[in-house]
Amino acid sequence: MDMVRIFHMAQGLGETSYAHNSRLQKEVIESVMDMTLSSAMEACAAETVSIADLGCSSGRNTLSVVENVIRAVCERRREATRQLPEFMVFLNDLPSNDFNALFSLVPEFVQKLRAEHDADGIFVSVAGVPGSFYGRLFPSSSLHFITSFASLHWLSQVPAGLLNKGDPINKGNIYTSPTSPPSVATRYFEQFQEDFNIFLRSRSQELVVGGRMVLSMLGRRSHDIHKKINEFPLFEALRKSLYIFVSQKLVAKEKVDSFNFPLYTPSTQELEDQVYREGSFTIDSMKQDYHDWMFENAPKMLSKTCKAATESLICHHFGEEIVESLFQTHTQVLYERLVAGEDIGWCQITVALCKSTTR
Amino acid sequence: MDMVRIFHMAQGLGETSYAHNSRLQKEVIESVMDMTLSSAMEACAAETVSIADLGCSSGRNTLSVVENVIRAVCERRREATRQLPEFMVFLNDLPSNDFNALFSLVPEFVQKLRAEHDADGIFVSVAGVPGSFYGRLFPSSSLHFITSFASLHWLSQVPAGLLNKGDPINKGNIYTSPTSPPSVATRYFEQFQEDFNIFLRSRSQELVVGGRMVLSMLGRRSHDIHKKINEFPLFEALRKSLYIFVSQKLVAKEKVDSFNFPLYTPSTQELEDQVYREGSFTIDSMKQDYHDWMFENAPKMLSKTCKAATESLICHHFGEEIVESLFQTHTQVLYERLVAGEDIGWCQITVALCKSTTR
Repeated sequence: MDMVRIFHMAQGLGETSYAHNSRLQKEVIESVMDMTLSSAMEACAAETVSIADLGCSSGRNTLSVVENVIRAVCERRREATRQLPEFMVFLNDLPSNDFNALFSLVPEFVQKLRAEHDADGIFVSVAGVPGSFYGRLFPSSSLHFITSFASLHWLSQVPAGLLNKGDPINKGNIYTSPTSPPSVATRYFEQFQEDFNIFLRSRSQELVVGGRMVLSMLGRRSHDIHKKINEFPLFEALRKSLYIFVSQKLVAKEKVDSFNFPLYTPSTQELEDQVYREGSFTIDSMKQDYHDWMFENAPKMLSKTCKAATESLICHHFGEEIVESLFQTHTQVLYERLVAGEDIGWCQITVALCKSTTR
Repeated sequence: MDMVRIFHMAQGLGETSYAHNSRLQKEVIESVMDMTLSSAMEACAAETVSIADLGCSSGRNTLSVVENVIRAVCERRREATRQLPEFMVFLNDLPSNDFNALFSLVPEFVQKLRAEHDADGIFVSVAGVPGSFYGRLFPSSSLHFITSFASLHWLSQVPAGLLNKGDPINKGNIYTSPTSPPSVATRYFEQFQEDFNIFLRSRSQELVVGGRMVLSMLGRRSHDIHKKINEFPLFEALRKSLYIFVSQKLVAKEKVDSFNFPLYTPSTQELEDQVYREGSFTIDSMKQDYHDWMFENAPKMLSKTCKAATESLICHHFGEEIVESLFQTHTQVLYERLVAGEDIGWCQITVALCKSTTR
């Protein structure tokens, strides 16, 4: 599956769009805003401050992070009675992301910031950068501060090696689950290591020394990759929904058996190990939150959010026609889980990094 | 009319899109490629070369200019046995431009350039920048080379002052024509002066000293703004077509009388005067071409091109329903003109500028 060509959040600004269904991501972003702003203020001392948001998607969330960063940096400058910097903001996502929808929000965003700060000579330029963050995106030493929210759990591809002589080895599952063969967890872990290493190496080239990154992604609390590789009930409910469709003969079992999500939820330990191995960054701080979403309307909201994030992949494998009814079932499964007192939340890991070497 | 929100070339990559109907612009671009490349080679000596294309629209034309510039700069570096630079390419247009269609072409474009030069360590980053070039778009001193093709004849707005107590003063015309009252030409000229001055001042802040621009736009051969303000037969044919629709009672006369295009075709003298007045740039070279398009299939092709460029404005004023039949009439009018031996071409003015001062 060609992720760069196929994978994107649901487009537009309408009711089923990602932009309209990312309230939960907004809460997650706000829960790490303090950490983000502290890191930004350390990184943004230049005359022209370059900020990049990687995996930005197309809602107001991404602009709200940038807005908060710009405000915080301006405040710090004023306290130091220094001139306000000019800001260059890069919003990155895969080329199939809906940049048109995102760009339609830009004029209002820029006007608002200028109206607040124009007397002090603020200038904000916004650019969209299409491309995979698993590779170089920006010129050498051109960035001061990077954020990435709710994106880095997506791998560059479904790990290779999930077939044995053409036969899927991860039958009964759609990602690496407690019931997967041990080799499946290993393949997923290796893909994560490879991808995250490329991510760090690329960002290391793009950031100035002293530049900083705040990366926030789905994670897992357990360190044992074989026993509790995935604590992500949204996907467990999606797995269950797909196999309900198999039992109702709405989808062929083989079709589900051969489907796997390119997603990995690392532990804090795994992230730390990778940062240490790559060697360009030091860890300023790391945070693990569990968002349990234990409220009545949560199943519906979570299911819409999950649909907006995954439907491009589901449509590609199963065809468009099953999507609506699949997510109705998904909502129902989550609801039953909630009623049974089982959590339906997720673990979020956020790490603030500083580029410490010139290599 | 809010140009920033409304005006865009026909979207997508399909048969009626601007991308598909800009072969004539391609020929125009190629006719000034030598001038463009000479200018680029003078401007692009930095380690990281920043290039911007302003008013890029969404076809392959814009990427082909950038591709040629990058190749020429790399060749020059090789001759000087210097390391190849990294390239940062900014593609600018109004926020309603189809950036999604443009970005879908970017991965192939970048891969192609990397495949050609990868052994020498080339790196190319492409970003889209939504916004009007009649104002600041980029941080101070952040660009080395700017191009703008077939865009700068579009004004920021229809000039103010085209009403006399609510009554249109440019009746019978849809832009400033030989039969317009003299004050109409004056208003158009003043709007051009104001817009082009803002354009130059903004670019002057964004370019490094020694940075260069190549600007190519529709122009006119005559210097007398009142007698031959517009030698642009495409619009003259569009004016005629609209008044044919009036005579056939397909459109109300008042509707056409109150419509004016925000377009100005300057003379070389007018451009020179504005550059001199603004004061940041010297003129390296200037070129005036007349493209006569005297071939049988030209009316159809020109009409499609004109439709792709203007239909957002026409739809906004007249409604979508007249567009198809209007451009059928337009093709016919151009065809009759061609048969009568009258030209159906346009004058193109290209100027290469160098930023000479630090002000």
